[in-house]
Amino acid sequence: MKYTAHVNIMPLKELLDPQGKAVSNSLHNLGITQVQDVRVGKHVTLTIEAANAAAAEQATTDACKKLLANQVMEAFTFTITEG
Amino acid sequence: MKYTAHVNIMPLKELLDPQGKAVSNSLHNLGITQVQDVRVGKHVTLTIEAANAAAAEQATTDACKKLLANQVMEAFTFTITEG
Repeated sequence: MKYTAHVNIMPLKELLDPQGKAVSNSLHNLGITQVQDVRVGKHVTLTIEAANAAAAEQATTDACKKLLANQVMEAFTFTITEG
Repeated sequence: MKYTAHVNIMPLKELLDPQGKAVSNSLHNLGITQVQDVRVGKHVTLTIEAANAAAAEQATTDACKKLLANQVMEAFTFTITEG
């Protein structure tokens, strides 16, 4: 069966996020002053062929740990949907 | 009130995503062969001080259109949560 994994990879809360800070400053310069804090990470969608949702979840966790996320600096979360 | 906007910015489906293709190849080399297709985009969280959810939504749309997303190549979606 086909599954889609929606993975979010974000810098850890404890760490500074200079890219987010730069975006925040730019938004203020553009007059969007309601925005107080910005954090920038990655969003990755994986299309996975697997027997069941548990197998798809396992493949996604493997992919994140082995390649997508640098766990020293980033945390990942994901959801799996069918199709 | 404080709201958090969770924004996903992804390359349009019609366009090639070379970064996604590179990730896909790397995953196959690592033995994670169940993954068939990968697309890589950005995930941005905005902390917004706004009177209500509609105002927070408006600020987020503005931020995406004016700065975060290049609408020629990317599409954005977002959800707003309280707190």
